[in-house]
Amino acid sequence: MRREQIIEASLRRFALDGFHATTMADVIRESGLSAGAVYRYFPSKNHLVAACAASVFSAVRGQLAVRLDGPEPISPSEALRLMLGTALRHATAPDGMDYSRVAVTVWAEALRDDALMAMLRDLYAVLRGDLVTVLRRWRDAGHLAADADVEHAGQALFSLVPGFLLQRLIFGDVDVDRYTAGLETLTSAGRA
Amino acid sequence: MRREQIIEASLRRFALDGFHATTMADVIRESGLSAGAVYRYFPSKNHLVAACAASVFSAVRGQLAVRLDGPEPISPSEALRLMLGTALRHATAPDGMDYSRVAVTVWAEALRDDALMAMLRDLYAVLRGDLVTVLRRWRDAGHLAADADVEHAGQALFSLVPGFLLQRLIFGDVDVDRYTAGLETLTSAGRA
Repeated sequence: MRREQIIEASLRRFALDGFHATTMADVIRESGLSAGAVYRYFPSKNHLVAACAASVFSAVRGQLAVRLDGPEPISPSEALRLMLGTALRHATAPDGMDYSRVAVTVWAEALRDDALMAMLRDLYAVLRGDLVTVLRRWRDAGHLAADADVEHAGQALFSLVPGFLLQRLIFGDVDVDRYTAGLETLTSAGRA
Repeated sequence: MRREQIIEASLRRFALDGFHATTMADVIRESGLSAGAVYRYFPSKNHLVAACAASVFSAVRGQLAVRLDGPEPISPSEALRLMLGTALRHATAPDGMDYSRVAVTVWAEALRDDALMAMLRDLYAVLRGDLVTVLRRWRDAGHLAADADVEHAGQALFSLVPGFLLQRLIFGDVDVDRYTAGLETLTSAGRA
């Protein structure tokens, strides 16, 4: 589909050159389509960024939603493993290009672009809300204290998603399974 | 001191315009000093960024080092509270300017600048190492299982620092004490 083809092309340019330096002309060239075709789907670069972000987010949420609606509550670390696993599968292109770089670029651009920040806030609020739901169900199943403040625990849990992407880009030494196991080790600190 | 005056001026310009868009000329103008004076201390923008980052990092580490060398091990959440508290005190200028924006800008720029990435990796490796030390002492004091993998738990714990800064900028709804309490709630998940 053309729409997906354009999203692929923009993810690729954003990852290589950053959001700021990428122009619509770059995306058009990368996509191999005509300018008219690209502008028909995406009237501006912000529309492209929104579509790129939404495409990765809908994949991440889709996987989590299946488990959230299941009969058994999932643990916080299982939810994290699921989110990171899906995000990474969608962030790695067949040619080895790493689209997770785009996330960091978008964070920085959002500081100077209110529309982009509003979009980011909306998407991340949904993800963070999903994690709060995971924690609420986990608490209601008796795995957390009955009066556990799941809203603030959700803030801490949410940090593990961008923190993983960042450490992956800076250190290159993180692995979803071992990182998730690290969270489990950390949670055993509560036993003291 | 002139050196601190120049660092203040660059933090201010980086926070307002981003690292990429800020020129040495902008910093010189902001500092109120002569070009010669600024270049004598900082021959390039990368030197400035390194100095800005090092100035915040040495404050954060200094606070933590005092506690790390103390007779009592500190808990992971106490270490987090200490790090975030110091970082925020140093990130908020008397005029209300928020320098934590600079961190996000530096992450994005580091993706396209190997020297900057190397500097970031060195600084963050030290901070992450400090958190691993906190966890090792916490484990050795019997608060974690004797075979707890503190290296990977340290990766998870480290994420809570950039994750806090990011949520502060995106949502504006995080607070050090409640966020740290959120980590404590999360760690009680291990009891199940």
